[in-house]
Amino acid sequence: MEQDRVTAVYLVETAYSLERAAASIAGEQSTGTFTAVPGETDAVKERHGARVERIEPLEDTDTPSLPGAKTPPGHDGKYRRGRVTVSFPLHNFGPSIPNLMSAVAGNLYELQELSGLRLLDLELPEAFTLRYPGPKFGIEGTRKLTGVYDRPILGTIVKPSVGLSMGELSALVEKLARAGMDFIKDDELNANPPYAPLADKVKAVMAAVERAADATGKKLMYAFNITGDHDELRQNHDLVVKAGGTCVMVSILSIGLSGLTYLNQFSEVPIHGHRNQWGMLTRSPLLGIEFTAYQKLCRLAGADHLHVNGLNSKFYETNESVVRSIAACTAPLLGGYQTMPVVSSAQWAGTAPATYAATGTVDVMHLAGGGMLAHPDGPAAGFESMKLGWEAAVQGIPLDVYAAQHPSLQRAIEKYGKG
Amino acid sequence: MEQDRVTAVYLVETAYSLERAAASIAGEQSTGTFTAVPGETDAVKERHGARVERIEPLEDTDTPSLPGAKTPPGHDGKYRRGRVTVSFPLHNFGPSIPNLMSAVAGNLYELQELSGLRLLDLELPEAFTLRYPGPKFGIEGTRKLTGVYDRPILGTIVKPSVGLSMGELSALVEKLARAGMDFIKDDELNANPPYAPLADKVKAVMAAVERAADATGKKLMYAFNITGDHDELRQNHDLVVKAGGTCVMVSILSIGLSGLTYLNQFSEVPIHGHRNQWGMLTRSPLLGIEFTAYQKLCRLAGADHLHVNGLNSKFYETNESVVRSIAACTAPLLGGYQTMPVVSSAQWAGTAPATYAATGTVDVMHLAGGGMLAHPDGPAAGFESMKLGWEAAVQGIPLDVYAAQHPSLQRAIEKYGKG
Repeated sequence: MEQDRVTAVYLVETAYSLERAAASIAGEQSTGTFTAVPGETDAVKERHGARVERIEPLEDTDTPSLPGAKTPPGHDGKYRRGRVTVSFPLHNFGPSIPNLMSAVAGNLYELQELSGLRLLDLELPEAFTLRYPGPKFGIEGTRKLTGVYDRPILGTIVKPSVGLSMGELSALVEKLARAGMDFIKDDELNANPPYAPLADKVKAVMAAVERAADATGKKLMYAFNITGDHDELRQNHDLVVKAGGTCVMVSILSIGLSGLTYLNQFSEVPIHGHRNQWGMLTRSPLLGIEFTAYQKLCRLAGADHLHVNGLNSKFYETNESVVRSIAACTAPLLGGYQTMPVVSSAQWAGTAPATYAATGTVDVMHLAGGGMLAHPDGPAAGFESMKLGWEAAVQGIPLDVYAAQHPSLQRAIEKYGKG
Repeated sequence: MEQDRVTAVYLVETAYSLERAAASIAGEQSTGTFTAVPGETDAVKERHGARVERIEPLEDTDTPSLPGAKTPPGHDGKYRRGRVTVSFPLHNFGPSIPNLMSAVAGNLYELQELSGLRLLDLELPEAFTLRYPGPKFGIEGTRKLTGVYDRPILGTIVKPSVGLSMGELSALVEKLARAGMDFIKDDELNANPPYAPLADKVKAVMAAVERAADATGKKLMYAFNITGDHDELRQNHDLVVKAGGTCVMVSILSIGLSGLTYLNQFSEVPIHGHRNQWGMLTRSPLLGIEFTAYQKLCRLAGADHLHVNGLNSKFYETNESVVRSIAACTAPLLGGYQTMPVVSSAQWAGTAPATYAATGTVDVMHLAGGGMLAHPDGPAAGFESMKLGWEAAVQGIPLDVYAAQHPSLQRAIEKYGKG
């Protein structure tokens, strides 16, 4: 690719020709406005104009996907869809994620010429690597800190999400850590609430983690939810690190990509990136952003772990889309920017084989909340059942066959396998 | 309202009963998960559970608005819509905008029980005022700095958005400032690009502003686009203030609400809040967030000025929605949090009467890019035509009648009034 341009691929829907829609996109986001102005010379257009690189027509539709779209005089009633590639001169905004977003997204979603627009993918030049060093830990760093190799990192989410006392939380964490669990994360609903300040939580949890580590020789990774305003990010991160914690978690949409970039400038432990609120940017098929594009920005900004939902989850997302997200996160980006995809939501031992089949890798974090904690024989058995699920998956043994020799897996199937 | 709870109003669409959908929302975002877990006791639910406060049924529809929605066995084919009010205990997350968002938005947009979800409004308790002091200037502060009273603050946007040399920009600004213009803003596409670094722009622009101020006695307010990452916000803000600049602009969606909160912690001039990228959060009618809710968060975070589009704009948004946004921004919030609505996009003198009729106030900022700069007799005549447009509007004189005595208005009508 050209190192002096950013390329954006859009899914476009329009009552006009795709050519006209593409020209609107390029004009609006570089040198144009709604009426010709003095100064928009050919030289300015040449140096600074966005360029339509490619237009691939897709199907037509009779109904506009979004409201407020204009139609041309004598409109034939068809809305044309296509994949439109536009390139932008990098010197219009420089290697800056915030200003990149104003350029490749900006006002485009509001244009009357479009009845649908979705940012599908972004190709970024190498200049971004100088400004954004990316994750410091990624897959390898996380494996080193947890001591878990050759299988997914298995973990759980504190449930109930909200309301446990420090004593209850500490007891739960110690029990799970003693059972050999790799990883526990706070729920995204639970960061630094007045009823359970993060400082108290860090103290209670890390004491439990250290007690268990002394007994087992293995230190559980606990992702403390440090989501907050910028000043709190620093404060909360330091609290965790000083207490010996090995991971911090943030809701990326809550702190913004620039909040994540900021955190990554001083973080000393992996950043666990949660993507709650993402649905509003992506669930309408002809609006918003595809995760393939967004995950690149999250990785540039420094997410060591990145949530991607899970197969057969409780959410609307198709399995195909989840697999696409995992593939995107594991594809190299600008020669690096390794992140560990985090598979979660309604997961249990039984979702391991399909996840492995779809992704072909064990370099994922696989989280089960209720699917581990509500195991009929308790959380330790829940954790064991998850490990067994992956053993069966990797060895190609059908789950029920493997379960015949492994009661914790059998019991998991009985409990969760009916859905 | 109860001072210990946050209230969120949603537009909901579901194949289930509205009661069941409301219960899913409340459960997902507080104490529940997809399967019952030990610890989710009645006491926890009582102390920490979200509560469905009200359900108002609206119309049914035959087609789900969003993909991936589940239907109950024996589904009658109808998708029910309703307005659902849910309250959340404040102590679950505290007065923190980032954590509020994880609670009131979070994973809700992805729930299979819903085929549509839109956050319509938020009621926040007073605890938020302690954490978020809000705009330091607002309407009054901006009037004081510009010396403009009793009419809208009229201004323009640098066009072409991208590509002017420092010399061209400086000459344009000086010309407009000498013509008496109140306000100029950078385009949202133009912050601190490599071809025209902000430091150079600030120097060139402020020299022009000061020269004109010496001649006219009036100092134009220039909103420098300082959008960037965390460290750049401070640096760019300080550049502007040191050079005597009186306004900074940010793309709120680019820096995030927590970026805005951070900037507001040290800013010494009004913050001009641009809402590009907002379309992707709002154009799908049964998804995302209504501006009525979002503008409250922008004001808490410190936006002194807040973009709301304009009547008859080049964008998809209806005039009704624009008027609703202006009304929302001018309604008091927690006893203050004054912000100045910024009306822009395809504006010119002729959009003044409708804007005044709809909003009943002159406490707005009215921006015209091409609608002033491309005036047939030049930008000074463009500015004059805008003032005349508002004079006619406030005095209730039809525009064409007033134009008969005012050539610059007449010429504006000839140029822009044909659309």
